[in-house]
Amino acid sequence: MIVEMGKGATRKQVDHVVARAHSFGFEVQLNLGTEKTVVAILGSDTGKVQTDVFAVLPGVESVTRVMKPYKLASREFHPKPSKTTVSGVEIGGHKIVIMAGPCAVESEEQLMTTARAVKEYGAAVVRGGAYKPRTSPFSFQGLEKNALKMLAKVKAEVGMPVITEVIDTRNIELIAKHADILQVGARNMQNFALLKELSKLKHPVLLKRGLSATVTEWLTAADYLMAGGNRRIILCERGIRTFEDSVRFSLDISSISVVKHFSHLPIIVDPSHAAGHFAYVSSIAKAAIAAGADGLLIEVHPNPEEALVDGLQSLTIPAFKQLMDELRPLAKAVGRDI
Amino acid sequence: MIVEMGKGATRKQVDHVVARAHSFGFEVQLNLGTEKTVVAILGSDTGKVQTDVFAVLPGVESVTRVMKPYKLASREFHPKPSKTTVSGVEIGGHKIVIMAGPCAVESEEQLMTTARAVKEYGAAVVRGGAYKPRTSPFSFQGLEKNALKMLAKVKAEVGMPVITEVIDTRNIELIAKHADILQVGARNMQNFALLKELSKLKHPVLLKRGLSATVTEWLTAADYLMAGGNRRIILCERGIRTFEDSVRFSLDISSISVVKHFSHLPIIVDPSHAAGHFAYVSSIAKAAIAAGADGLLIEVHPNPEEALVDGLQSLTIPAFKQLMDELRPLAKAVGRDI
Amino acid sequence: MIVEMGKGATRKQVDHVVARAHSFGFEVQLNLGTEKTVVAILGSDTGKVQTDVFAVLPGVESVTRVMKPYKLASREFHPKPSKTTVSGVEIGGHKIVIMAGPCAVESEEQLMTTARAVKEYGAAVVRGGAYKPRTSPFSFQGLEKNALKMLAKVKAEVGMPVITEVIDTRNIELIAKHADILQVGARNMQNFALLKELSKLKHPVLLKRGLSATVTEWLTAADYLMAGGNRRIILCERGIRTFEDSVRFSLDISSISVVKHFSHLPIIVDPSHAAGHFAYVSSIAKAAIAAGADGLLIEVHPNPEEALVDGLQSLTIPAFKQLMDELRPLAKAVGRDI
Amino acid sequence: MIVEMGKGATRKQVDHVVARAHSFGFEVQLNLGTEKTVVAILGSDTGKVQTDVFAVLPGVESVTRVMKPYKLASREFHPKPSKTTVSGVEIGGHKIVIMAGPCAVESEEQLMTTARAVKEYGAAVVRGGAYKPRTSPFSFQGLEKNALKMLAKVKAEVGMPVITEVIDTRNIELIAKHADILQVGARNMQNFALLKELSKLKHPVLLKRGLSATVTEWLTAADYLMAGGNRRIILCERGIRTFEDSVRFSLDISSISVVKHFSHLPIIVDPSHAAGHFAYVSSIAKAAIAAGADGLLIEVHPNPEEALVDGLQSLTIPAFKQLMDELRPLAKAVGRDI
Repeated sequence: MIVEMGKGATRKQVDHVVARAHSFGFEVQLNLGTEKTVVAILGSDTGKVQTDVFAVLPGVESVTRVMKPYKLASREFHPKPSKTTVSGVEIGGHKIVIMAGPCAVESEEQLMTTARAVKEYGAAVVRGGAYKPRTSPFSFQGLEKNALKMLAKVKAEVGMPVITEVIDTRNIELIAKHADILQVGARNMQNFALLKELSKLKHPVLLKRGLSATVTEWLTAADYLMAGGNRRIILCERGIRTFEDSVRFSLDISSISVVKHFSHLPIIVDPSHAAGHFAYVSSIAKAAIAAGADGLLIEVHPNPEEALVDGLQSLTIPAFKQLMDELRPLAKAVGRDI
Repeated sequence: MIVEMGKGATRKQVDHVVARAHSFGFEVQLNLGTEKTVVAILGSDTGKVQTDVFAVLPGVESVTRVMKPYKLASREFHPKPSKTTVSGVEIGGHKIVIMAGPCAVESEEQLMTTARAVKEYGAAVVRGGAYKPRTSPFSFQGLEKNALKMLAKVKAEVGMPVITEVIDTRNIELIAKHADILQVGARNMQNFALLKELSKLKHPVLLKRGLSATVTEWLTAADYLMAGGNRRIILCERGIRTFEDSVRFSLDISSISVVKHFSHLPIIVDPSHAAGHFAYVSSIAKAAIAAGADGLLIEVHPNPEEALVDGLQSLTIPAFKQLMDELRPLAKAVGRDI
Repeated sequence: MIVEMGKGATRKQVDHVVARAHSFGFEVQLNLGTEKTVVAILGSDTGKVQTDVFAVLPGVESVTRVMKPYKLASREFHPKPSKTTVSGVEIGGHKIVIMAGPCAVESEEQLMTTARAVKEYGAAVVRGGAYKPRTSPFSFQGLEKNALKMLAKVKAEVGMPVITEVIDTRNIELIAKHADILQVGARNMQNFALLKELSKLKHPVLLKRGLSATVTEWLTAADYLMAGGNRRIILCERGIRTFEDSVRFSLDISSISVVKHFSHLPIIVDPSHAAGHFAYVSSIAKAAIAAGADGLLIEVHPNPEEALVDGLQSLTIPAFKQLMDELRPLAKAVGRDI
Repeated sequence: MIVEMGKGATRKQVDHVVARAHSFGFEVQLNLGTEKTVVAILGSDTGKVQTDVFAVLPGVESVTRVMKPYKLASREFHPKPSKTTVSGVEIGGHKIVIMAGPCAVESEEQLMTTARAVKEYGAAVVRGGAYKPRTSPFSFQGLEKNALKMLAKVKAEVGMPVITEVIDTRNIELIAKHADILQVGARNMQNFALLKELSKLKHPVLLKRGLSATVTEWLTAADYLMAGGNRRIILCERGIRTFEDSVRFSLDISSISVVKHFSHLPIIVDPSHAAGHFAYVSSIAKAAIAAGADGLLIEVHPNPEEALVDGLQSLTIPAFKQLMDELRPLAKAVGRDI
């Protein structure tokens, strides 16, 4: 951490900063400029301490981090990319993993039809929401337990692992019995009560980026999950909130290379929630693969017109097939497979 | 809802839109322009239906809401301002309500000292965090149950109602036993599982605005709380995430008059979390009162240098006293009292 | 335009809105709902009128556009993609066009070396700044006229068209003599004095997206250029300002498909200014091609360490060669060539 | 500047950084941590050098500024608040200065009526646009020279200084002959060609904040004006672009105290452009005064329904009178006068 003292800060104030740093066991080096004193606070655990601890001291002008606030998710801590295998599907490896299915499970038939189709066209994991976080209390809230049973049935009959979202600490145990991957939605990225419980599981957790979270905050949320012992974390970029209003969210395409630079965790992309409209899903999906994403999470519905949730951003089954056909040569072009 | 058909949309496509609208029991009026057809879908419940339901239909170019997606929080539904009284303190009335106290309860002494001081200088409610949502797993997470007991003790001894945050559905019952007002933090504004449980309580709920939530989304979240039967909702603006980096969050001062325009709910302002630095708290607090806020939620700590959480944005007790002295004439100037 | 009247608006107020619309020669249709009246104002020129004209009238609650505020840049107006050819290089056609070169022209040698190299590896246009818009008055401001002469010389000797930026109406004539494509920078996207002058030229103009401009505002700025008679407009996405701080700007990857949906104009992408760091340029460049961009604008410098401007985001010549090698199979995978 | 070397950076790479810093004449201090080396580059002119110069060097992980990139606008450089007097009106002093008038000059009668009224109710300066930067080429672009003449006439007859906007370097001379204060609009805050010319004038320049400019960038733009010799700079906050869509721009209320902290320049607030709707102007205006602004810039029109520009955000003359009546006690409450 770099503590910049204000102009005219006294020696006593500088000593106070130094003493505070020493109280944490950090090394300190003083830089006495002609105009300002700069105190460098060094040590691999400085990332765990809030900058406020020093910023609040008298005479301090500003405090800047050198170490990132996350550690377990950091590539410095774990230089090689980490991979997670679930029911035979490796995530973060050579093969790009496609997770596809309806936004919400609406019926066994709807789920089964979609699962069979997406598997046929190349998806490795089926998605389907059982508990739905809806912005309006008047909207369909999911089939809950019944949806979990349908997911388990599909898993058994179609033979592909299942991902579903968890939105309440009280349901984790039940969901963990039926699903292979547990998803934390964007609006829950900093629901720390939820993260703490999930950190105790053995299941992989897919952590969506909060819609106004920086990459640093996202990786720090991943640290929450990892600090409890769960190392099977998959990141998912799904668009951030900006002023642009032609799409629901602006997919942050640069986050893929930034995450790869700073973290060892696999990252996949959800083009559906970013676009908010089926017409833009394909273009964003292709961009994600070209940029280096390890997979995609795509909404597919047998009849989007009748979908209870997010029909507008769902691909039809034929549209999904066409996208997969277009993604294969792209994957090859970046040295990977689907 | 206004459905704009694309250029060249067929009569059959228009009819399809009309039929869909009729299936919800809505009135429909067709506007056949020379270039485009516009379908107006009318009815007081159109706000409850997602625009996607129509946007996904063939031939549709775009869909625009006329009715807001919230209803119970709307001033159209309830033209007079709503007020809530808790332990004799009226919120949303003539008097401006100051809620003050430490970010986190750290000890009985810290809490008691602060509560007595803020009461003396004019605060009506004492705040103190028991369960802390922290961005880092390595940070202090709150004294939890012990903090709740201290809050109850302070309430009894100092004689002022208590507000504290709830972050997990599993703790609501316990917190409701000890606290007078339950707070939903910014990062939980769309934690719908939490909102649903809180909607069943009789306690007032203070709903902080999500850091990237529009005013419309915020009022829709209030509808979640109200749809379950709880009408004692207090809104709290605490800054939104923007590109500006000199403060933690940009306080959206215009949200006060916008909320007053569209909603009957009382709105207070938290200048501490917006500013992120004690030096800016006073200026923002004054602006909030001048703009028409019904109260303030302010962090005060007897010794910010030693605070375990958010020391940088906490006022010392003398600084709080000075702010209160400066706020009184301002309140008078806008026709109110503190 | 759709005018929503407030609850309780009088018949007289509705008539006033209707009369105002008629005064512009627009068609009007009334939608009398049980709760609210909605006035639909129709006609292909409604996009040219500001919504304020109606929003300000008594009894009006809100006004929503149906027609976009731009017309000449719209795909509705010109359904087929438009192409521009400059010195034999077609922009917006089958072939992806790479424009590359130094951020600023620093010397004839620097420019010549870079131009020869980028041409060898596949660039079709050379870029080089003569007049530099710098955020600090203490920074290098460009070689100005001398740079223009060097660009003209390179053009003649190396045989490739030249693009350079114009930042002042007083220099347009001079720049137009030396350069093939004139660039409007992001900070000048709404410098309407500049746009009006450029609209009179016969040269193609590359219009960068403003760093906080919506796609709609960007296409409306293109209309400024086109309204004066210049139809040779090339759009360039270069990242927008968001809260994310790991990159200089967040490249809006979805803008490519959105622009293709609403406009006939070619769109290229500048990954260098978005990334702000050479490490992220390649990933973003690949994403842009996969998403459907018609070209790239890339900063290349023979020795970025010594660059006077933007060295950090410049590729070395070997890094540019490698990127081009990686882009070729990607272009093939999306059915194009470089 | 603080240069953080990457893990495993070599001694040679550190030496390279040090040599580069020495080449600028800066002092250097090395901080050799067990995990990372941190190079502190000290000196009062480090703010003038871009961080990129060091960030591009091999082995460097990141570079952080200690000195701000602006100097002349900085309070460190000039600790006392600076004041500017124009035709007897002091800006930045004890008295709060109200500038009011129509967005655009539409006729002599319109301007004269408004000027007389706003003067009567307490405004000290009259505003009126002659050259209008309009987002659409189809909108009214201003009366240009004729408007300047009307402004000069009003100035002479009504006896109050005049402020108008300049949007093109070619018009500066003419505008300077007729107006007292020249305004740089938000979209031109980084039109450096314009700033350079204005820096040579003796007239005060009102510099609006760019709609996506940080406070630091804004003060750096002020440095452009000051570096050329013009020290009569007035800052004007007018709202920034965020995701919130209930207002045109989100007024950054905290910028007032932030600017006062870092700069000596006076700052006024334009509530009209931020709100975008007359209903919110009053609340924002009051907040600005309470927060410590030195003045307001308000749009007033004798008949907003007929306004050619921005009618929706203009106050009528009676509404302006009422606002002034409400502002006076507020100004008193913060120890000032209007």
